[in-house]
Amino acid sequence: MDNTISGFSKLSKSEKIDWLLNTYFTDQDSARTLVQQYWNSDDKLQKLHDEFIENTITNYYLPLGVAPNFLINDTLYAIPMAIEESSVVAAASKAAKFWLERGGFKAKVISTEKIGQVHFIYKGDIAKLQAFFKEVKSKLIEDTAFITKNMERRGGGILDIELRNKTEDLTNYYQLHATFETLDAMGANFINSCLEQFAVSFKTEALQFEGFTEDEKNITIVMSILSNYVPECLVRAEVSCDIEDLKSKDIPNPQQFAQKFKQAVSIAEIEPYRAVTHNKGIMNGIDAVVLATGNDFRAVEAGVHAYAAKDGKYSSLTHCSIDNGVFKFWIEIPLALGTVGGLTSLHPLVKFAMEMLQKPNAKDLMQIVAVAGLAQNFGAVKSLTTTGIQEGHMKMHLMNILNQFEATEVEKVKLVEHFKTHTVTHSAVVDAIEALRK
Amino acid sequence: MDNTISGFSKLSKSEKIDWLLNTYFTDQDSARTLVQQYWNSDDKLQKLHDEFIENTITNYYLPLGVAPNFLINDTLYAIPMAIEESSVVAAASKAAKFWLERGGFKAKVISTEKIGQVHFIYKGDIAKLQAFFKEVKSKLIEDTAFITKNMERRGGGILDIELRNKTEDLTNYYQLHATFETLDAMGANFINSCLEQFAVSFKTEALQFEGFTEDEKNITIVMSILSNYVPECLVRAEVSCDIEDLKSKDIPNPQQFAQKFKQAVSIAEIEPYRAVTHNKGIMNGIDAVVLATGNDFRAVEAGVHAYAAKDGKYSSLTHCSIDNGVFKFWIEIPLALGTVGGLTSLHPLVKFAMEMLQKPNAKDLMQIVAVAGLAQNFGAVKSLTTTGIQEGHMKMHLMNILNQFEATEVEKVKLVEHFKTHTVTHSAVVDAIEALRK
Repeated sequence: MDNTISGFSKLSKSEKIDWLLNTYFTDQDSARTLVQQYWNSDDKLQKLHDEFIENTITNYYLPLGVAPNFLINDTLYAIPMAIEESSVVAAASKAAKFWLERGGFKAKVISTEKIGQVHFIYKGDIAKLQAFFKEVKSKLIEDTAFITKNMERRGGGILDIELRNKTEDLTNYYQLHATFETLDAMGANFINSCLEQFAVSFKTEALQFEGFTEDEKNITIVMSILSNYVPECLVRAEVSCDIEDLKSKDIPNPQQFAQKFKQAVSIAEIEPYRAVTHNKGIMNGIDAVVLATGNDFRAVEAGVHAYAAKDGKYSSLTHCSIDNGVFKFWIEIPLALGTVGGLTSLHPLVKFAMEMLQKPNAKDLMQIVAVAGLAQNFGAVKSLTTTGIQEGHMKMHLMNILNQFEATEVEKVKLVEHFKTHTVTHSAVVDAIEALRK
Repeated sequence: MDNTISGFSKLSKSEKIDWLLNTYFTDQDSARTLVQQYWNSDDKLQKLHDEFIENTITNYYLPLGVAPNFLINDTLYAIPMAIEESSVVAAASKAAKFWLERGGFKAKVISTEKIGQVHFIYKGDIAKLQAFFKEVKSKLIEDTAFITKNMERRGGGILDIELRNKTEDLTNYYQLHATFETLDAMGANFINSCLEQFAVSFKTEALQFEGFTEDEKNITIVMSILSNYVPECLVRAEVSCDIEDLKSKDIPNPQQFAQKFKQAVSIAEIEPYRAVTHNKGIMNGIDAVVLATGNDFRAVEAGVHAYAAKDGKYSSLTHCSIDNGVFKFWIEIPLALGTVGGLTSLHPLVKFAMEMLQKPNAKDLMQIVAVAGLAQNFGAVKSLTTTGIQEGHMKMHLMNILNQFEATEVEKVKLVEHFKTHTVTHSAVVDAIEALRK
């Protein structure tokens, strides 16, 4: 059987599904029913979702959950989270409630600068290139006026362009390193459009620059593209309280808890194997909000993890201190987010999420997202250093295993009761179901 | 108004939604209609999705698209991709087709070892700790038999446990560093359960170890947790062909194309600002398949980016060579994936995706995912070094902007035609819509 196909993208949705089912599925009728069961009953709404990307056949569901009681800079938020992993929303909610009673979260945007680069090859005298750049810089900015006018009207735009000499790293390699303020837009399209225009103007002007020899005029633009590494687009969030105030049902001995918590964070600061998972837990909280608010989690992930490695060794994104009887726990991360443009104004559930968050601007959203990450990490490190992570996690996961075996409500009640006093492992649950059914 | 709430998690779904709408929404009726419009019409199916996480109110839609024509180790795949970003599925399909005609993708799993650690504090003589570990090691493994029996029956289990001295990095800090083979399971629950059991046995046995003083017996377990950093769970994917064979409609001059492509990859190897975005593009392909197959993209992201920073400077995950007239392009990344357990057996669309992929085992899936990342990067670097990324991207994005302004079919046809010869920017599209409607 030949499983190749030409012109797939030009087929209708039904034709695409037909080809797929014919080519790869045994029970085509139930597969077709399944795919269609996930379509929205509103055809217009479905069409909107279909057109977000190419070759769409149906909607992949991620549960949209809510974590209430987040007090951030004295405003109360219920945070929308789109995520498939159990226990993340529960942990966020629990951490929110815990800190609600202890003054809440403080968050602050430190900087909002975005970055883009035109990468090029120039074979010639560096002094001449510098002279050329000096002469052409204002022209580069002028030539983007048709792109920047709306952004400038709102107070943003191009901040600066620098010529960077990278020839020590790669022969004849230079950059136009540009910085941008994109306000409430994430800004990828804006920045890329500016950069591509810089590249056109730069190359064109070089051909006419009298200081260059014929060879030097021939600059090669390799590519023009924004960077998702945004170490100058930073937000900080923190919680703090007197150690004694950490006392609660789960924390009978706050002094001991604080010491062990700090130890766990110190370990994540110095041990990369631990830091990766520590930060992964932070990203559980961050990505869930990033997704629910229509932002691009791959961009956020790449920027955040590169930031975690910025000092040469991959390390923790959160930090903890104990000074004069005060426990403090904080995060500082780069986040390039948008609250206008892109999916934020298109996906009806993103609009819903934005309203739930009281229509944040980009800076507000940076703060909310950073807090979600910090809360998640607080919950994870608290569990890890006290009961262990499996107790909570496996109890949540128990329900999933029961569903997998299509346990009835009666079976569920019995087995949940059973596992209150037994260790949940996948095989223990399977054994228990089988025993019950015998 | 007091926006705090107690016992939120114990409310029914309807009660949760009611509280949210009352607290944060102005037009509560349309918000309720919207949330419910995203519920599945099949109540049982909806309940299944609700129970994946906590406080679920509805389903967040990610478009599920398909990229056909992937020839991987001589098998043809259509790859399911769940992603909200336009042009990712189109780029993957295009790269698949391009390489289909040039021998396809070759992929190979290099290693499959997973890692977990028990982090502990020991204040005492190191030689005694080593002696204790030597004595207790086999007991640690025996005590996990109730967890490992099913995994061992299938050929996996605990590979080894090492005692690691980390006191140079942090006072009195040691690890039990354990390695695992988890076969077709991602293994997080398995590994965490084993580690927590190690910790219990280790602490208990220490209290009885005669070589220790009373103080030395008192080992503090800080935490027990798997690592998402898996540099020994590696997969490699590559494409290659004679440079002359790169010739195609888009590539009139293959020699020049290959040189510029290699230059772009070299730049990503030496410049972190570029590497982050280069790798972000790779993750567009990887996460889309990871999501569609029910795996945990935060775990994959953390492990992959930490691997990109392993040599002390954040760098490209793909590489390119040109030798003896042969163009070669490859990726080598750590991927801990599962095809059984977790969401893979619960989410009906994940089962559908697995059938589309011809029921891969974990190694097959590692190969498919690595190929999706490589294909995505090939497409991105090809666009960047030839037409620029905005041409393709903005044309895809145009449709989204038109939908946002609820353009009619007639308006869409006119504006798509218009932007075949005009630069797409957000403001240009808005102006064009307004002009058309005047």
